[in-house]
Amino acid sequence: MARPSLISLSLCLLVLFHTTLARQQREQVGECNLNNLNALQPDNRIESEAGLIESWDPFHEQFECAGVAIDRKTIEPNGLLLPQYSNAPQLVYVLQGNGLTGTLFSGCPETFQESQGSQQGQGSRRFQDQHQKVHRFRQGDIIALPAGVAHWCYNDGNERAIFVTLYDLSNSANQLDLNPRSFYLAGNPEDHFNPQQSQRHPGTPRGRESERGTSPRRMRPHVQKGTCNNVFCGMDTRFLAEAFNVDEQVAMRLQSQDDRRGPIVRVKESLQIVRPPSIREEEQRQRGGRRYNTENGIEESFCSMRIRENLDDPSRADVFSPEAGRLSSLNSHNLPILRALRLSAERGVLYNEALMVPHWNQNAHSIIYAIRGQARLQVVDHFGQTVFNGELREGQVLTVPQNFAVAKRAEGERFEWVAFKTNDNAMFSPLAGRTSAIRAMPVEVLANAFRVSPEEARRIKFGTQETTLTSPRSKSGRRFDA
Amino acid sequence: MARPSLISLSLCLLVLFHTTLARQQREQVGECNLNNLNALQPDNRIESEAGLIESWDPFHEQFECAGVAIDRKTIEPNGLLLPQYSNAPQLVYVLQGNGLTGTLFSGCPETFQESQGSQQGQGSRRFQDQHQKVHRFRQGDIIALPAGVAHWCYNDGNERAIFVTLYDLSNSANQLDLNPRSFYLAGNPEDHFNPQQSQRHPGTPRGRESERGTSPRRMRPHVQKGTCNNVFCGMDTRFLAEAFNVDEQVAMRLQSQDDRRGPIVRVKESLQIVRPPSIREEEQRQRGGRRYNTENGIEESFCSMRIRENLDDPSRADVFSPEAGRLSSLNSHNLPILRALRLSAERGVLYNEALMVPHWNQNAHSIIYAIRGQARLQVVDHFGQTVFNGELREGQVLTVPQNFAVAKRAEGERFEWVAFKTNDNAMFSPLAGRTSAIRAMPVEVLANAFRVSPEEARRIKFGTQETTLTSPRSKSGRRFDA
Amino acid sequence: MARPSLISLSLCLLVLFHTTLARQQREQVGECNLNNLNALQPDNRIESEAGLIESWDPFHEQFECAGVAIDRKTIEPNGLLLPQYSNAPQLVYVLQGNGLTGTLFSGCPETFQESQGSQQGQGSRRFQDQHQKVHRFRQGDIIALPAGVAHWCYNDGNERAIFVTLYDLSNSANQLDLNPRSFYLAGNPEDHFNPQQSQRHPGTPRGRESERGTSPRRMRPHVQKGTCNNVFCGMDTRFLAEAFNVDEQVAMRLQSQDDRRGPIVRVKESLQIVRPPSIREEEQRQRGGRRYNTENGIEESFCSMRIRENLDDPSRADVFSPEAGRLSSLNSHNLPILRALRLSAERGVLYNEALMVPHWNQNAHSIIYAIRGQARLQVVDHFGQTVFNGELREGQVLTVPQNFAVAKRAEGERFEWVAFKTNDNAMFSPLAGRTSAIRAMPVEVLANAFRVSPEEARRIKFGTQETTLTSPRSKSGRRFDA
Repeated sequence: MARPSLISLSLCLLVLFHTTLARQQREQVGECNLNNLNALQPDNRIESEAGLIESWDPFHEQFECAGVAIDRKTIEPNGLLLPQYSNAPQLVYVLQGNGLTGTLFSGCPETFQESQGSQQGQGSRRFQDQHQKVHRFRQGDIIALPAGVAHWCYNDGNERAIFVTLYDLSNSANQLDLNPRSFYLAGNPEDHFNPQQSQRHPGTPRGRESERGTSPRRMRPHVQKGTCNNVFCGMDTRFLAEAFNVDEQVAMRLQSQDDRRGPIVRVKESLQIVRPPSIREEEQRQRGGRRYNTENGIEESFCSMRIRENLDDPSRADVFSPEAGRLSSLNSHNLPILRALRLSAERGVLYNEALMVPHWNQNAHSIIYAIRGQARLQVVDHFGQTVFNGELREGQVLTVPQNFAVAKRAEGERFEWVAFKTNDNAMFSPLAGRTSAIRAMPVEVLANAFRVSPEEARRIKFGTQETTLTSPRSKSGRRFDA
Repeated sequence: MARPSLISLSLCLLVLFHTTLARQQREQVGECNLNNLNALQPDNRIESEAGLIESWDPFHEQFECAGVAIDRKTIEPNGLLLPQYSNAPQLVYVLQGNGLTGTLFSGCPETFQESQGSQQGQGSRRFQDQHQKVHRFRQGDIIALPAGVAHWCYNDGNERAIFVTLYDLSNSANQLDLNPRSFYLAGNPEDHFNPQQSQRHPGTPRGRESERGTSPRRMRPHVQKGTCNNVFCGMDTRFLAEAFNVDEQVAMRLQSQDDRRGPIVRVKESLQIVRPPSIREEEQRQRGGRRYNTENGIEESFCSMRIRENLDDPSRADVFSPEAGRLSSLNSHNLPILRALRLSAERGVLYNEALMVPHWNQNAHSIIYAIRGQARLQVVDHFGQTVFNGELREGQVLTVPQNFAVAKRAEGERFEWVAFKTNDNAMFSPLAGRTSAIRAMPVEVLANAFRVSPEEARRIKFGTQETTLTSPRSKSGRRFDA
Repeated sequence: MARPSLISLSLCLLVLFHTTLARQQREQVGECNLNNLNALQPDNRIESEAGLIESWDPFHEQFECAGVAIDRKTIEPNGLLLPQYSNAPQLVYVLQGNGLTGTLFSGCPETFQESQGSQQGQGSRRFQDQHQKVHRFRQGDIIALPAGVAHWCYNDGNERAIFVTLYDLSNSANQLDLNPRSFYLAGNPEDHFNPQQSQRHPGTPRGRESERGTSPRRMRPHVQKGTCNNVFCGMDTRFLAEAFNVDEQVAMRLQSQDDRRGPIVRVKESLQIVRPPSIREEEQRQRGGRRYNTENGIEESFCSMRIRENLDDPSRADVFSPEAGRLSSLNSHNLPILRALRLSAERGVLYNEALMVPHWNQNAHSIIYAIRGQARLQVVDHFGQTVFNGELREGQVLTVPQNFAVAKRAEGERFEWVAFKTNDNAMFSPLAGRTSAIRAMPVEVLANAFRVSPEEARRIKFGTQETTLTSPRSKSGRRFDA
């Protein structure tokens, strides 16, 4: 019996090896000769009946280099984001609020079923509904959505639900070009990455719109928005009537011709669906039980694949210093679907003027969204030029291109961020501290490289004992007061 | 013993998971801002001694977006398509006829050997030939050919053999640019994707040639065709004489300088090669035995890899409705070599005015070739715009880009098609019917999304019980008479 | 017990299958409409305190088509190449000399430690150093370096160490654009792929610089070199002081502001580091023992991964003919890290006017560097046009694009080369000899394709018995005297 288990073990190792190293398939996009990065606010804003979508212009140099687009969605209580899919895989971070989301995998069974006794007598419905799995989400969750998979989202809480979404357009799962595209199954929404001046939802105020870059390198598609924008609009109603086996009046409803509610609509009363218990109910039930989202492993099948993980829980930190802060990372080892999406994420908190040591991203771009507070960042290219030296404030986005060096320092008591990374096993190399490239070199190499004495080289190498995060307050009283 | 088998099982699942999801490596190509698709006839035609090659201009917008090229080859009885290889992986569908094909894998053994007694006394040949495996093909076969692997093809039947071939230029196996290139090992053929006006095979009529697009976005290579076009032409004859250890007269024959037969040549008498029994012989032998092409599995080695599968057999259907039609799909789960080629195919038949329900391709472009009859198709982009609304007739090609919604309806008694897809596990999401995205959603989400009553939502959701294919005749007598 | 071992075996085969076929992920880059290839000398030269870097202009058509860059580094005895990383994976071939190199993998342990007794009393150092693994290299080694992983290199021998390095810019591990970028951790080096006219290291002679191509298709970055070029330069010294927990004077040393030594610096005295025994010491110790670099297998962990293999040893040849020469190839089957880098290499020697038979590279570009002697090469495109017909001399580089046919013949007594290939399992198909495409075809196909008699076809097919390499002297006395 030793033999097969040895082979199996070897295979396990092989697979791990394979996973660690061999997953770097990604496209090179446009030019990355960035002389200047900026901390960016959203450029465009589309208001809806029950919410708001703000988007960053995907033609910004830094997004073109990284091949991504980004937006922020606000869903009011009882708001429903209409079902849609995108040509790019998405990572969604839940900034606040909680609710329900459903992903629609063709061919997977409808596993959420009403029990016979429930919901009877409500309005005119007598039948029992059944539908695919519904996922509950809450603040701090990362949700992973494959390209081409439709999904909807509902806020059943009492506060606004707000998401930041990264679209990885240069991912090889997108075989179209690099324009972000949302395909809606219902409603009549505007393309929020290619807004129009002429047609806006009546009654909504004119959004803040920045001046766009003058000469975008990608061709911005020419939009001739009609009165109907979802995927059913372009089809013959009689065609639809036959396909759905309904009469044409109902088929016309699919096309939502005169729908002016926008992509986020208000649900009348509240949404009655078969769904898992809310967090509190769940926590009450689970008191003393195990955590509810830790069971995903290789034994789980496609249709019940886990698509989310909470990154806000402090006890989940991968790097932690009581004085400096904490870092949690999410990659294909802890959320397997990320292997297919080739994306990962990092959630960080820096306390009181602590630093994240200078480092570079080995194999990924890093798109940083500031959640709370503000920080000073410095980003350096391979000529030694500073391409960014400034503040990153709550609600702003900064792209740190692959291999560029970056350092980060909290200003004030607390800086929190989420970083989306364009590799399912994004790795960074610190330049200082316990796991740094500097620490990995012999002292004499340092002494000769930096023309310092061996004693000074030793201090450079061993001066910082911390890993990644370090607090000047915990040291010899020095301060950084730029 | 439970342990290793558990690990092995886990690994199996991991590998399956990996296969299902993580195989989406492909390039993004050019622009896909398609405002208009067209059902296309071939643009160019090159006649040969024993056949004909018709090709679609690869600079058409829809082929540029999908990163593919397509041609149709007709080989007359006793015609031989000269050995050649391409910079792109190919999927070949056999429209009609049957014959033999040989793929030339360097390093694989010559496993087809004449027995000592056979073929003696035929002409001047006394020796026993041996060569690599020869594959028999017949109508309905899909043949998979890797990039850079040479192959030849011979029609040993009594009717014309006709193939449609898709070249996946944007496949990562092609490290050259996006121009289709055929490298011939013999003969003096013209590049059928880049035809010239000046030099044509004498005696052949001027082919039907469409006006090309005025400003191709890829640079069309400038062709200076000489009198010699195969890979030996550019080499010194003395060089060749030494490499082949033959005299220079013979070496000059390799260069085929004065050969005007074109890429498909007529074989004198018939081709005497070691070959498997013909279909009829085989069927006679196999009466009661197992089918001959179902044995390919992971235990089979590289050199004997299966490269073809028949899709015309009705009993092979993956989706079947006696009233509406059938669908057969071919992917890397049933033809493993497709995992390397990252391509798959679908073969469909629609009966009497039946519909293929509106759907979108999640992870692939779909290039449809109409085999028989005609259909009406509607294709819709993410703005809800109809980019195609028209007929697709026998012999025409239409590209449906990834994520665009499409519906299809047979006109007349029967519509048959083959669709090539640019992913080895191409998946589509129906919008109506049993496996649809609509069915996966809760009724109340539908009710709110489409502003209909729960009862109407229920009808939209459950109205069509069929999967993918549906026939209006089987329903309440409604008709579609646009 | 039969069951699990069978499953495991199947998985092994599956993984092998997967490895052999499914690893062709790579980018298509620019145009490959090459009408003319050239054997190229370096275009630029940067002298350093203890060495020299010569580079080939990456904007040459042939390098743009292949998506690579190439340079040659000379390190004098006691010279240290400063630690740096690149946006592209690299393959390094050691033309001559030997020394030490360290790769800096973040998170891997410092496994080279001074024993307590050693090195005491040397200068001012009292502490014990510890650092990551140091690799010894020698002439004939290929060293594989992943993108974004920093490394340094030291010549501890008595002769110059010279390397040729290939940078695979179009590799998907590079998510930036196609410009080669070196990020230095120390010193103040010039970008040797984008040299400037104005600022040169004082005291070094003006290098030989060719006229660049007039209209490069990629935008050459505009370099504004300041006085400081490493990744620390763009950061605030106080920032650095805090991150390293050193005072600002030391932090300024990290920025190396006034360092004019260039990228290769002279070490004072010799480098005292913990290191493996030298080759001779090792050989003395290992007399009778196993070879030192053959132990890498799937059981080995990430941090101790083997990164080099010697290709010069004649006994390692994969193809050998006493009269014609030998070929050794290095791919992911014998150096597993190449699976992640998607690169491989071939080392060849041709004796006395021997030939490498005409062949084509199925799945890779081949970038040939001539190590010794000279050869005549002919390269042919798919139109049958000769795109190269000339000499390749010691120190020159020639790119043979994927699928183009090529033949090679030694001029004089000995021609040696190394070829870098852009696929981790690069395969070529010979056109003549035992493993050729011609040999794989039936004689009658050849007879009809080339319009020769079966007897002549037989001679074409079986004339050359050798595999890949053949010597005209061993045959009928014919010569090639072009």
